[in-house]
Amino acid sequence: MTIKLTDYNPYDFANRRHIGPSPAEISDMLEVVGAASLDALIDETVPGSIRQKAPLAFGDPMSEREVLDHLRATAKKNKVMLSLIGQGYHGTIMPPVIQRCILENPAWYTAYTPYQPEISQGRLEALLNFQTMVADLTGLDIANASLLDEATAAAEAMAMAERASKSKHTAFFVDHHCHPQTIDVIRTRAEPLGWEVIVGDPFTELDPEAVFGAIFQYPGTYGHVHDFTDVIATLHAHKAIAVVAADPLSLTLLKSPGEMGADIAIGSMQRFGVPVGYGGPHAAYMAVKDAYKRSMPGRLVGVTVDARGNQAYRLALQTREQHIRREKATSNICTAQVLLAVIASMYAVFHGPVGLRAIAGRVHIKAATLAAGLKQLDFIIDPAIFFDTVTVFAEGRQSEILEAARAEGINLRKVGDDRIGIALDEVSRPETVEAVWRAFGGTLKFKDMLAEPIIADPLVRQSRYLEHPIFHMNRAESEMTRYIRRLSDKDLALDRTMIPLGSCTMKLNATAEMLSITWPEFADIHPFAPADQALGYKQMIDDLSDKLCQITGYDAISMQPNSGAQGEYAGLMSIRSYHRANGEGHRHICLIPTSAHGTNPASAQMAGMTVVAVGTRENGDIDLDDFRAKAEQHADNLAACMITYPSTHGVFEETAAEVCAITHKHGGQVYLDGANLNALVGLARPGDIGADVSHLNLHKTFCIPHGGGGPGMGPIGVKSHLTPHLPGHCVTDGKPGAVSAAPFGSASILPISWAYCLMMGGEGLTQATKIAILNANYIAARLKGAYDVLYTSASGRVAHECILDTRPLVQSAGVTVDDVAKRLIDCGFHAPTMSWPVAGTLMIEPTESEVKAELDRFCAAMLAIRDEAWAIEDGRLDRENNPLKNAPHTIEDLVGPWDRPYDREAAIFPAGAMRNAKYFAPVNRVDNVYGDRHLVCSCPPMSDYAEAAE
Amino acid sequence: MTIKLTDYNPYDFANRRHIGPSPAEISDMLEVVGAASLDALIDETVPGSIRQKAPLAFGDPMSEREVLDHLRATAKKNKVMLSLIGQGYHGTIMPPVIQRCILENPAWYTAYTPYQPEISQGRLEALLNFQTMVADLTGLDIANASLLDEATAAAEAMAMAERASKSKHTAFFVDHHCHPQTIDVIRTRAEPLGWEVIVGDPFTELDPEAVFGAIFQYPGTYGHVHDFTDVIATLHAHKAIAVVAADPLSLTLLKSPGEMGADIAIGSMQRFGVPVGYGGPHAAYMAVKDAYKRSMPGRLVGVTVDARGNQAYRLALQTREQHIRREKATSNICTAQVLLAVIASMYAVFHGPVGLRAIAGRVHIKAATLAAGLKQLDFIIDPAIFFDTVTVFAEGRQSEILEAARAEGINLRKVGDDRIGIALDEVSRPETVEAVWRAFGGTLKFKDMLAEPIIADPLVRQSRYLEHPIFHMNRAESEMTRYIRRLSDKDLALDRTMIPLGSCTMKLNATAEMLSITWPEFADIHPFAPADQALGYKQMIDDLSDKLCQITGYDAISMQPNSGAQGEYAGLMSIRSYHRANGEGHRHICLIPTSAHGTNPASAQMAGMTVVAVGTRENGDIDLDDFRAKAEQHADNLAACMITYPSTHGVFEETAAEVCAITHKHGGQVYLDGANLNALVGLARPGDIGADVSHLNLHKTFCIPHGGGGPGMGPIGVKSHLTPHLPGHCVTDGKPGAVSAAPFGSASILPISWAYCLMMGGEGLTQATKIAILNANYIAARLKGAYDVLYTSASGRVAHECILDTRPLVQSAGVTVDDVAKRLIDCGFHAPTMSWPVAGTLMIEPTESEVKAELDRFCAAMLAIRDEAWAIEDGRLDRENNPLKNAPHTIEDLVGPWDRPYDREAAIFPAGAMRNAKYFAPVNRVDNVYGDRHLVCSCPPMSDYAEAAE
Repeated sequence: MTIKLTDYNPYDFANRRHIGPSPAEISDMLEVVGAASLDALIDETVPGSIRQKAPLAFGDPMSEREVLDHLRATAKKNKVMLSLIGQGYHGTIMPPVIQRCILENPAWYTAYTPYQPEISQGRLEALLNFQTMVADLTGLDIANASLLDEATAAAEAMAMAERASKSKHTAFFVDHHCHPQTIDVIRTRAEPLGWEVIVGDPFTELDPEAVFGAIFQYPGTYGHVHDFTDVIATLHAHKAIAVVAADPLSLTLLKSPGEMGADIAIGSMQRFGVPVGYGGPHAAYMAVKDAYKRSMPGRLVGVTVDARGNQAYRLALQTREQHIRREKATSNICTAQVLLAVIASMYAVFHGPVGLRAIAGRVHIKAATLAAGLKQLDFIIDPAIFFDTVTVFAEGRQSEILEAARAEGINLRKVGDDRIGIALDEVSRPETVEAVWRAFGGTLKFKDMLAEPIIADPLVRQSRYLEHPIFHMNRAESEMTRYIRRLSDKDLALDRTMIPLGSCTMKLNATAEMLSITWPEFADIHPFAPADQALGYKQMIDDLSDKLCQITGYDAISMQPNSGAQGEYAGLMSIRSYHRANGEGHRHICLIPTSAHGTNPASAQMAGMTVVAVGTRENGDIDLDDFRAKAEQHADNLAACMITYPSTHGVFEETAAEVCAITHKHGGQVYLDGANLNALVGLARPGDIGADVSHLNLHKTFCIPHGGGGPGMGPIGVKSHLTPHLPGHCVTDGKPGAVSAAPFGSASILPISWAYCLMMGGEGLTQATKIAILNANYIAARLKGAYDVLYTSASGRVAHECILDTRPLVQSAGVTVDDVAKRLIDCGFHAPTMSWPVAGTLMIEPTESEVKAELDRFCAAMLAIRDEAWAIEDGRLDRENNPLKNAPHTIEDLVGPWDRPYDREAAIFPAGAMRNAKYFAPVNRVDNVYGDRHLVCSCPPMSDYAEAAE
Repeated sequence: MTIKLTDYNPYDFANRRHIGPSPAEISDMLEVVGAASLDALIDETVPGSIRQKAPLAFGDPMSEREVLDHLRATAKKNKVMLSLIGQGYHGTIMPPVIQRCILENPAWYTAYTPYQPEISQGRLEALLNFQTMVADLTGLDIANASLLDEATAAAEAMAMAERASKSKHTAFFVDHHCHPQTIDVIRTRAEPLGWEVIVGDPFTELDPEAVFGAIFQYPGTYGHVHDFTDVIATLHAHKAIAVVAADPLSLTLLKSPGEMGADIAIGSMQRFGVPVGYGGPHAAYMAVKDAYKRSMPGRLVGVTVDARGNQAYRLALQTREQHIRREKATSNICTAQVLLAVIASMYAVFHGPVGLRAIAGRVHIKAATLAAGLKQLDFIIDPAIFFDTVTVFAEGRQSEILEAARAEGINLRKVGDDRIGIALDEVSRPETVEAVWRAFGGTLKFKDMLAEPIIADPLVRQSRYLEHPIFHMNRAESEMTRYIRRLSDKDLALDRTMIPLGSCTMKLNATAEMLSITWPEFADIHPFAPADQALGYKQMIDDLSDKLCQITGYDAISMQPNSGAQGEYAGLMSIRSYHRANGEGHRHICLIPTSAHGTNPASAQMAGMTVVAVGTRENGDIDLDDFRAKAEQHADNLAACMITYPSTHGVFEETAAEVCAITHKHGGQVYLDGANLNALVGLARPGDIGADVSHLNLHKTFCIPHGGGGPGMGPIGVKSHLTPHLPGHCVTDGKPGAVSAAPFGSASILPISWAYCLMMGGEGLTQATKIAILNANYIAARLKGAYDVLYTSASGRVAHECILDTRPLVQSAGVTVDDVAKRLIDCGFHAPTMSWPVAGTLMIEPTESEVKAELDRFCAAMLAIRDEAWAIEDGRLDRENNPLKNAPHTIEDLVGPWDRPYDREAAIFPAGAMRNAKYFAPVNRVDNVYGDRHLVCSCPPMSDYAEAAE
């Protein structure tokens, strides 16, 4: 018998598991594409001038088993303690059914942002529950579908206040009891926009005449619970906007911000079942008064009707979305934390208002009892009225007590040099309180000290909340399981089909990458835990940073930005800081091609830059002459340029290096948007091309799943000269410039990207890039003749994505790009990116993870759609009443009378649709206009809800 | 503010999560039932004479979080070492995608046995893949859908050989190189049947003229690989049957049993991705020559057609199923290990033949290299030809070396007093081999010693296997994920609907109960690891045993039986042993009511008893006069009686205690079938009623999920006088009487039942029983007037289940119980138990986990079905062409021409069907007769398979 160990490695993750096409398929596909070999194709596609010299040297790739062993060993270096640090992060219990059926379920975590509402009704319903919950708890009219974290939500609220306020002032008041990281992020955001930040005591230091708005923390970071009603009234009298940062659990007991008159409430929903995870990801929330709903940043889910008039959900007011305006943008937010918002909403669905109130009540009683005990031990406590957090004076004994608590397995908060903060939570038990007392030198028993509630009128909440049936009918786990399943069954995610979204890189989110994020050693570390309790995190972050540096050619990485847009902003802020440090603070011009993603100019605005648009040539490339001219024209003030590579048109432009050189020549810095890094890894490095800074979408290129529209991670890589200008953090290094609440952004999902790099190895990553390019060129080749491919390189190749022109169909057959997208649903596909970067086109990015059979299924669907359009052109199909216009087809269509000039078979089984696994959209085509005209953004009264259980 | 901690406990698992109905619902339901209170209902239902005196005292119930902490602390007491012990259990790597998407996915693990093929096509396909894989690997014609474990499979093979052989002999030959536990289980099984077991060397000690069959282990337990072709030919010449127990991984390299002429092959599929789990659960397999297919025990999946002529799967040859014949039964097997068989089949689907061969090749090379090194170190190795296992002579140094290996984190096998067994596996790495060398005193390097394969002709496998496309198209994880999802989407499980199966207790399988089974500390412990490495298991088994004793009133528990039927057999064997020990070995009569489950008489037969049937009265109760008469008649020889309580008719009979007393009076022992324990827990104890032994279906009453038809656990509880007669095990106590391969059966799923007991607490368990009874009585009350409820107690109550009589519909409307069951699929339900215990009826057990809304949905469906039958009676619906006869309705029905006298709306949206979450059966009604006439039990050639990827 002959056995060669090198013949076939079943544990070769890159080539057996992650990369879709097999060697045989690759060779078939190369034939279709017309390339002699994979390397020949890459040579034709990626300009030789930018190709990286040395291959990535990551050592031997690990198998799935090895990586899990390695992750486990790394995880063990983190020390899981009970953290009563608070400061915005609290122990919480994720109900196991939610962990398993949502956080660990690919049907939920591999879904994309719900831009295509017909295949997203499940997560849209969950988000509507979230909005309803937030609006109810805050006592405000309307809530969005989540923001990144509490600190950025506060900064967004400030920016929104500035937009909404009729005040002429440029100062914003910040409660000195806001969380320190919130204050920092607000400061970072305000500075380039020229707004003054005044931090002080709202009751003694707030001059309402001098500000456009103010933010108060409720309860305060040290535990105080104040009624801001009067302060808010004074602000309103001076046309200023009042923002309250509120802890949602406390709002089940406390008078709501809305009842105090607040215009905006923000906060973190973390403690609704989402593990602290060393800082994230979590969902922040924002709720506003009805009058301000059109100024609200972020995504908003609304109720509308479908083509049959049945109720349907979709993203509302998308025209307003993101406040991405090339001029005067004060927000670049373009994502949410959907997966985490879904979890938080389900926590409320599962517990209901009675359960939530009971949880809050238990926390409060524990805190009150703790305080009673500490008083008995002769300690002075500052907040007289508190919910869950107390601050204790421990003059001279601070470090001794902190140390004693750690010996009990408990982290307390060091406040200044003489105080100690203690925040109780859902996880705290009576024994926890007793252990804290021991750390303070007492041996009291919880039951002996059991205290009464501290909160009294007028702070006691009187208003009701979560009265909608959805919060009352899923108490039993059987029902909860079924509700979660019913929702996910409505949606199409990667676990059922490819999602060929241009520029969004919906690649495999391998299970081996995902498994560790719910391990307690990663999930249950407080972001402000002592550094020696997070050595596993440190090792991972250091090693991942090293690898990302190797991949990008940069010298340092900041993991702080927790979205791509935030990465852009952080990168540009580094450039800003660099220029100022060099005494060139006047440099403010940022050159951006017109083809850039909308977040680019918005981020530049936010970093205090003035955007100068650079033209694009007919073939989609940057107009180099225009670029040179504008750079020269603004040479004295040139701060930066922003380019995307490969371009947003899906092409490796030949001129990238020259653009960098021109920029540098005129004193500017180059920001290279990393959205398309999946076309570069192992082949070319932004740092080598000449860029100074980039963000990396870990949720695109590095396998963090999209989670239905978040979490994301947008760390930035910089050349060494920018390293000193990376974001600081008040807890880790005490430096300014924080862009996120947590020092390492959404740290708990970093194991995903790390595991990916470790299992792929340098060679595997490079092969993945090549196959991503092959797959895109294969689709382009297969669809030739049916659709024009817009923008190719001089050699006729596309990069890792291609743009199909569907505009001719409008003329010839009245078929819009929308019709094509919706018809793809009938075929069992999520539509590609629609009308971006070119209106009326589809941008397709298949990624390396899709096998040839799936690509062929997609091509068959696209060709069949083209056939239907031809049939319309020929008059074989009616111009209005045809399968494209009526798509998607639903069970409701099938079951009722059929008056269409084509048959049911043609309607529901077009090419691509699986006979034995037919996906039906749960609604017909969604009416966006109706929804925006009749805006409803919380759960509608549902007559078809079953009788509530409680 | 007032907060009372006692008002509402959100962590009350019993009342918030496990038990469906809320207090308000309970009170509504009591009104419908016509009971003054829950306790009043129970008093009317459960005879006072048998009610237990003291409540269960389990201390405070734990919350989900507490139980997980407790499980984690317990798990840490197990020490995860690398076990190279072999002996039928091997390290293996479960691909993460299979772990997450199958083993941790309620859509798979909460499914029921696929008796209703229309809602089971997904798992039936997976099982067909399993059968195809087994048949291919063994080189035999047909394989079943799995058996319990290798040792019981061997015993089943012996029994089958006895049935199939034309030899008149009563001896069975067992290869002395069979695993010790296999030999033990064979001995246990043979003794009561009067068969002699001859253990010896097949090449020197087998007399083919003296036996009806023989079994050989391949490779042998000490590693030897022999060609049995000649021995088998000699057996055949004497009409004896040849059984080969083969390791499936080795068969990818070795000549198959079929090619050696074997009639039957059995073995364990554990090492195909299923963790060792301290002994189980795993899937065993059996494959046979075509000629013997109708003698094969266990379940068999076959291909057939549906009402439209489309391909469909279902359980084949069910009339033959289980060989449960009241006379001469030699098997009582009535389950499989579906979940584990699915995992093993998916392991092959994922790796394909090339991958499996590569894995086997790597294992073999590692073993060959290990052996080369040991020889270099001057050790003598016994098997010259081996696959993965070697046995080393270590005279005088055995314990020193075993100890040194343990210091390296490795368990080796102690063989006799001077040998050491080493079995390499998929998990072993070159460093593992080097560590073993170190334990033997050498410091060799793997790469220096790298050896060539040892296996040579004629043992090298020449034949091909796994050529079906399904084993070639799911190499990429994206595709694998989608394939698994497509299959599970075809099936109805508890994650979508209640499954009201009488006598099967399909209650909530809570996530908190399930989470720990995949933790390495439970999953990766070898069943024969040293006891001090399994202290966590010991603690759990001891505590769970204590609790089960408290619940049942017994004095000791054996966890060894891994199915309910095996529990019956083990229990009766204890009785047999007891009588023999008392010098009353002649006692052989077992009284069994005619209403008993078919496994009861089969088990009695197998335990060497003669079954005497006892009549049943018209109301379903045991005919006490007949019982007394038969007991008196057989007083001298009375061994036992077997009763089920509450009865299989779903009633608490008043006479149970008297039946026990009569039996005891005449020297017999009472076996109380624990299948219906869910109606007793906390209310009454079998031990108190007078029973001596019972099995407990942990997969019914104690929340182990059904897994689509396995795993199960059937531990037995006994009174103290039977304790010495519980099953022994060659490894744990060296005693005879083993009934399973592993000492504690399927130990790794015990955390489920343990967590359930810990979270429910005594009060919660008791409340669950009461609500189970309420739910059943509620359904009976709601359906009154539409269907007669057969069998109630004198007070008109049912126990935890009720039997609905659908027989009148046959007369009046031509509607069969099948029609009702299939129509329920249209309503989105799994049918209740059909035609058992009474032909033509439905037995419904809602369990305590279902909320009122779900019960109402079910009642609405049943009432609507009755309405349809009335419509047929009235002539409003056609007698042949009506929604009941045409059920289930599929998408294929909808999409094609509609020629039915009712409309599509009526067809697919009967009462109960969810408008927004419609479940479609993937096939129309399945034709069982066609399938049995045209038996196909491996994957059919599928023209609709996509092009294979490799």
